[in-house]
Amino acid sequence: MTVNLKVPLKKTILNVPGFRFLTFGAKIKLKNIKNDIVIVELNKNSKTVAVFTKNKFCAAPVLLAKHNLTLNDPQLFVINSGNANAGTGQKGIEDAREINRELGKYFSLDPNLILPFSTGVILQNLPLGRIKDSFKNNLANIKYSSNWIDAAKSIMTTDTVPKAVSKKFNLGKNEITCTGIAKGSGMIHPNMATMLGFIFLDAKISKTLLKDLVKYVVDRSFNLISVDGDTSTNDAFVISTSNLAQNSVINKKDKMYTRLRNNVLEIAKDLAEKIVRDGEGATKFVEIEVRNAKDLNESKIIGKAIANSPLVKTAFFASDPNLGRILSAIGNAPISDLDVSVIDLHLNKNIVVKNGMLSKRYSEDKAIQAMKSKEFKLSIDLKRGKEVATILTTDLSYEYVKINAEYRT
Amino acid sequence: MTVNLKVPLKKTILNVPGFRFLTFGAKIKLKNIKNDIVIVELNKNSKTVAVFTKNKFCAAPVLLAKHNLTLNDPQLFVINSGNANAGTGQKGIEDAREINRELGKYFSLDPNLILPFSTGVILQNLPLGRIKDSFKNNLANIKYSSNWIDAAKSIMTTDTVPKAVSKKFNLGKNEITCTGIAKGSGMIHPNMATMLGFIFLDAKISKTLLKDLVKYVVDRSFNLISVDGDTSTNDAFVISTSNLAQNSVINKKDKMYTRLRNNVLEIAKDLAEKIVRDGEGATKFVEIEVRNAKDLNESKIIGKAIANSPLVKTAFFASDPNLGRILSAIGNAPISDLDVSVIDLHLNKNIVVKNGMLSKRYSEDKAIQAMKSKEFKLSIDLKRGKEVATILTTDLSYEYVKINAEYRT
Repeated sequence: MTVNLKVPLKKTILNVPGFRFLTFGAKIKLKNIKNDIVIVELNKNSKTVAVFTKNKFCAAPVLLAKHNLTLNDPQLFVINSGNANAGTGQKGIEDAREINRELGKYFSLDPNLILPFSTGVILQNLPLGRIKDSFKNNLANIKYSSNWIDAAKSIMTTDTVPKAVSKKFNLGKNEITCTGIAKGSGMIHPNMATMLGFIFLDAKISKTLLKDLVKYVVDRSFNLISVDGDTSTNDAFVISTSNLAQNSVINKKDKMYTRLRNNVLEIAKDLAEKIVRDGEGATKFVEIEVRNAKDLNESKIIGKAIANSPLVKTAFFASDPNLGRILSAIGNAPISDLDVSVIDLHLNKNIVVKNGMLSKRYSEDKAIQAMKSKEFKLSIDLKRGKEVATILTTDLSYEYVKINAEYRT
Repeated sequence: MTVNLKVPLKKTILNVPGFRFLTFGAKIKLKNIKNDIVIVELNKNSKTVAVFTKNKFCAAPVLLAKHNLTLNDPQLFVINSGNANAGTGQKGIEDAREINRELGKYFSLDPNLILPFSTGVILQNLPLGRIKDSFKNNLANIKYSSNWIDAAKSIMTTDTVPKAVSKKFNLGKNEITCTGIAKGSGMIHPNMATMLGFIFLDAKISKTLLKDLVKYVVDRSFNLISVDGDTSTNDAFVISTSNLAQNSVINKKDKMYTRLRNNVLEIAKDLAEKIVRDGEGATKFVEIEVRNAKDLNESKIIGKAIANSPLVKTAFFASDPNLGRILSAIGNAPISDLDVSVIDLHLNKNIVVKNGMLSKRYSEDKAIQAMKSKEFKLSIDLKRGKEVATILTTDLSYEYVKINAEYRT
């Protein structure tokens, strides 16, 4: 099930100068017939910045990728689905290193210039033999692909639709090309889902500002969906630029930087939204806006307290305006000095709660009508500051239980 | 669905000297035909201590009960199901006061000596008219009940089995009688479920030690299940003693106190366990033991991180030993200095994870066999201290979604 989400048209997804890639199958899950490996080659001048999960059981590829990023800008990404190489201890790290060494031979690269990314089942070792065989079959004579949708497909696990977005925009007179792909599976609990997001572009920008860009963008996109970018064992969000565009290097926070940032953010938000729309078992797409908070973090915490409540989510699924569950979720958010007696709640444009209690103008009929739609918006006014954040989430359906109960089988 | 839980036999549930009660129906939910009001009369010398939800959207009856407890020991409880009187603002408080005033007339009591308890739908006003009518019909000529199972039934919402436990024990040569009733509905998210627990006994004990007893008992019973006592809008746990037993007053932490505490804890643990076994949609009963933690709180946090993960719970439902999800849940628990590379995990007596990775002695067949059972135990060894806590929880099934999607209809 998806909520208003389609496979992108091939012609809309652009190749970015300086990046080449190919995909192939390694039967990482033995029964899999789809491609499960993507290799992305980056040009020599490219720069890469990434943010990773904060989960303490973080996966071997995360540890290795983090380490390699401290050395030099990477020249190659290897991304696999089907197996997370997490909970695999020292053996997992050795396996990831072994894959890098092997790839280094085919691409004549120092293995330390390769970043591994894995998602899939936890607590299983990678099938090294099958992976090496797939390298032999596909890398002895490399045929690059030009269809990024294939790459987006190959990194999917329980996703049902490949997620890719492209954009061209100008910095001054110079054209910039930007393409992002992402995958995200689980969606109900922000610290469980496994999410990968990659954005490739060609704009010239200093490493310092690229770091600033990644942080700014992820906080306002992937970190605002209920598949939270910062806590699974394998989550990663990566921006790489080939530096091949003709713009003069962006090295201060000027208009050009802002323009670039806004364009990249747009791509990231679009990808993040697609992850929610393809959320496991999703039948509804719900925006939760938390307004007039003291700070951004407070609005996020409250938005996620609502988005992650199973009782709220099952009410979404049933199109049941059992909106008291939302108040209870707000009351549970760890904001110690919250005054709930001033809070307003709107469902689309209709008022539900005024100053902490049911509004006299509340209409159950209108509420049911709004919630029967595939998409609706909740807006919570905290009346204590000026910040706003909008969390994107879905409902909790029978299908969610089914998908996750049957995932490994 | 329940997991190995039966209606208690009437003869096993004892009347406690000093407490009288009756139950009747007020059609608080219009369609309800079951009794939905319980009134408990406490003798003049009784003492009562209670702990309530920490939810900031806490309900009107919670605010009033807390207030009245600061004045004098209560003489009457009025407990209703069907409506939580939460998210009802000042009107909700006035309604609760009005009910107390009305009851005060029938029982010739100061309304401040009455404690109200409500659970049920949030954001709806109590049907005052129907409640007052029910008082007129049932309190003009009071017929007390002697069957506590009826009381346990009347406070149920989505519970399927009434929960009551009794015990007689001696303090020295003096016999003490103790009876508890409880209700608990949701179960998946500790800060959403609505739980009530009442324990009545006749032991003589000082108010100071009764306060100590409540805290000790709730922390080791209701606060260790995934229906957490401290965060819904209406949760309450209450111990009342009539002081009618013949023991000399317990006023220091001596052997007698310890003996009393252990007996009351046993009742409370039994009630809490019953709430889990009757958890919404439950098909499995799972114990999660977290051993060798630095402190009790740390083991609770980790146990609940596992118990509240939808991905873990759906794997329980599927009898699928996708045990990596447990590691991921541990890695997400907010314990900043946790060393995951030393952690062991057992499923019943079989080792799964040794030092943070899959044990060589792990047997998938044995794991599946264990998880196919209706009850099993996970044991996590943190190897960093000496404390242990055991969280009780269930799986997440289709039925859970169904119950919560259809709750109001």
